[in-house]
Amino acid sequence: MFRTLGQLATFAVIIAVTTSAYADKSRQALVLSSDFGTTERFVASMKGVALNVEPNLQIHDLTHHIEPFNVWQASYMLAGTIDYWPEGTVFVSVVDPGVGTDRKSVVVKTRTGHYVVTPDNGSLTLVADKQGIREIRQIDETINRRPGSESSHTFHGRDVYAFTGARLAAAVIQFEEVGPLLEPKIVRLRYQQPKRLEDGGVVGSITHIEMPFGNVVTNIPKSLVDALGLSPADNAAVFVEISHAGKPVFQQRIQYAQSFGHVDHGAPLLYSDSLQTIGLAVNSGDFAQQYKVQAGADWTIRLAK
Amino acid sequence: MFRTLGQLATFAVIIAVTTSAYADKSRQALVLSSDFGTTERFVASMKGVALNVEPNLQIHDLTHHIEPFNVWQASYMLAGTIDYWPEGTVFVSVVDPGVGTDRKSVVVKTRTGHYVVTPDNGSLTLVADKQGIREIRQIDETINRRPGSESSHTFHGRDVYAFTGARLAAAVIQFEEVGPLLEPKIVRLRYQQPKRLEDGGVVGSITHIEMPFGNVVTNIPKSLVDALGLSPADNAAVFVEISHAGKPVFQQRIQYAQSFGHVDHGAPLLYSDSLQTIGLAVNSGDFAQQYKVQAGADWTIRLAK
Amino acid sequence: MFRTLGQLATFAVIIAVTTSAYADKSRQALVLSSDFGTTERFVASMKGVALNVEPNLQIHDLTHHIEPFNVWQASYMLAGTIDYWPEGTVFVSVVDPGVGTDRKSVVVKTRTGHYVVTPDNGSLTLVADKQGIREIRQIDETINRRPGSESSHTFHGRDVYAFTGARLAAAVIQFEEVGPLLEPKIVRLRYQQPKRLEDGGVVGSITHIEMPFGNVVTNIPKSLVDALGLSPADNAAVFVEISHAGKPVFQQRIQYAQSFGHVDHGAPLLYSDSLQTIGLAVNSGDFAQQYKVQAGADWTIRLAK
Repeated sequence: MFRTLGQLATFAVIIAVTTSAYADKSRQALVLSSDFGTTERFVASMKGVALNVEPNLQIHDLTHHIEPFNVWQASYMLAGTIDYWPEGTVFVSVVDPGVGTDRKSVVVKTRTGHYVVTPDNGSLTLVADKQGIREIRQIDETINRRPGSESSHTFHGRDVYAFTGARLAAAVIQFEEVGPLLEPKIVRLRYQQPKRLEDGGVVGSITHIEMPFGNVVTNIPKSLVDALGLSPADNAAVFVEISHAGKPVFQQRIQYAQSFGHVDHGAPLLYSDSLQTIGLAVNSGDFAQQYKVQAGADWTIRLAK
Repeated sequence: MFRTLGQLATFAVIIAVTTSAYADKSRQALVLSSDFGTTERFVASMKGVALNVEPNLQIHDLTHHIEPFNVWQASYMLAGTIDYWPEGTVFVSVVDPGVGTDRKSVVVKTRTGHYVVTPDNGSLTLVADKQGIREIRQIDETINRRPGSESSHTFHGRDVYAFTGARLAAAVIQFEEVGPLLEPKIVRLRYQQPKRLEDGGVVGSITHIEMPFGNVVTNIPKSLVDALGLSPADNAAVFVEISHAGKPVFQQRIQYAQSFGHVDHGAPLLYSDSLQTIGLAVNSGDFAQQYKVQAGADWTIRLAK
Repeated sequence: MFRTLGQLATFAVIIAVTTSAYADKSRQALVLSSDFGTTERFVASMKGVALNVEPNLQIHDLTHHIEPFNVWQASYMLAGTIDYWPEGTVFVSVVDPGVGTDRKSVVVKTRTGHYVVTPDNGSLTLVADKQGIREIRQIDETINRRPGSESSHTFHGRDVYAFTGARLAAAVIQFEEVGPLLEPKIVRLRYQQPKRLEDGGVVGSITHIEMPFGNVVTNIPKSLVDALGLSPADNAAVFVEISHAGKPVFQQRIQYAQSFGHVDHGAPLLYSDSLQTIGLAVNSGDFAQQYKVQAGADWTIRLAK
């Protein structure tokens, strides 16, 4: 088999290095999110399928508690999490009210170097705006589908998305082997973009209520508020108006603070959250519940000095 | 230590290959399910015990949200998940109302080549019917019990099942070392088997309500409905009668569709689920809640043309 | 590069052995607990940050369902779990109502050889009493803080605790590199210690209600009850009085049993739990709900023959 000791030793080096490199480099984590909950066997089935592809794959959960069929939340979760994960991480996001119909199954490569495997039904909206999309490929199900699953039409999360995501994360396939390249155009949900108003205020939308704390998340970047000349260092009270479908629900001056502990227990505050966007909370309390505020495309927020 | 360079190099090859093989082959995933919930420290204690056996063990969760003491659900979760996991995977299932009494602690090897570590209290019912049981061994607690845990009588999930499961998954013991071989006979829960009726309909039981969607799961295989000459391709409306303890709760013709998206929002449908059994759902809704249907041994379903 | 085949082969051996040792020894598991829930993206962001430190790190969850801001529960969960994990395991515990204020961020080395990364706000109370504290170091955030996170003040769990915990678990830093050594004194929550009364009874506090079963956990060690001459083997009925803020809520004789299955369905029992402390439960029922008992510093329990 080996003609000289040199060949043999070289071979040993190659194997050793390969083993090390394989463990460290060629596999990426697979991160799952869905509206399946964790009560059922669905998530575990997805993980089993992924480990059948590669027994040593690292699998993690983003969340499986997205509100059923809420594609906006799916998008929000992806966009808010991706940046904290290593480049090359493969996200599988399955909120799929149209499973079995003709929405496209895609894998997106973001400008940040991450991958998202998902039905293209709006779940990529905020990813496109935040991380940016470099390339989109449609999953070729003649290749990238769990063998033996052809007659099942209701669980693409397991049979197509987890399977394809695992193959990509384990480097069984390269991104180019997912399927044909599509035009770089995704299905987008419409929402109010943040902007500065002529009267000097800023407006945006309420994108999320963070559970279990009930903190309100907006899409207004801290920089827009900075531009108004407002800073937590001033201990300034900012005028906040929250409207639902155009009708004011909350109108109050509240303190712009560096963190929760800087206001009294039970007091509301405006703050810059961990994503550098403006949020509202009650110190040791629940803002959304206390002031009957929810999130969604028809909830807007206006801030003024 | 090494007489020749050849010996040395050969040794290097052996180590390198061993390292690689060890990582890839000799360890199997450990998959935990229970009625412990994820609020408490119980599951984490089981995982700690397992990692004390082998620090690099892959541990996953099936679900820990089985209804407390519901052995039927434990069985349902196992039978519906096992097939998606690699051969050799070790499942630990702990729903154990009789902990500390004389129910047997066993490890089963299924005909599909998987292992289940569990109290033999009915949790193997559906595994026996679906995967089939090849061999049963009783856990010899003089060997397969966490050292130092002899005086604890209330947490066999941690001290016996997680410990034994981890040893098996990590190949610290072989299946033969679990304990003595038992007669291939498990404790069985009684339930209505699916069958064709003389009048041409089919009958079965409602085995599960899938949360959070409220989809109804039956034990009627798609093939029995195929044999009635019904197909989703026909857009046929099938007569469905659901009874509780013999009394009809739901009687309606509903569409047999390929998937949820093929009927109107809010409309009920009959479909073949991801396990190739018949299910009932409401598109973007909750069938169980809308029609007050539950699951269990006393819930039966009848389908007719 | 290599002068002789001997050097080459030796190099191969070194790499191979290093690879193996690296995988098996130098990394420890990272175990996360918090009051973040699993609905949001917070836990996933912490895990992403940890995997950016070391892509092959083993990450596990203790629980993320601690009651919001309940530092006592955080402490209870740590103290009850640590002992089951391998020496060297790194626990990150984030229940942090004072985030952004001047509470200290610390890493503790316990007498059992485990590490806890946490804000020092009371979360170490029961760890100090159970595992014991060997050394405390304050986290030097000029080194041990996620690069680029300096302007974020609201998510130290991700930016400081997960990041530092991952570095310690992956052996990127040694414990000595966490930051300066502090006096071995932590912030302590006050609670009723268990003790023997002059009249021959024992008193203690109710430290926890175990969900979803509703079992009552006390801080009375089995040994104190042994000393009263009581044993499950006697089938003895013990007098139990539970008081809230000094006012009796429950007064009844109940059986001291070896495990749940030894009393009738629906009957209460006193037992020695898996941590060798006294607990109360209802066989196949919920003690806390049935008898309106809760946990906390103002809930005490008295046992007498």
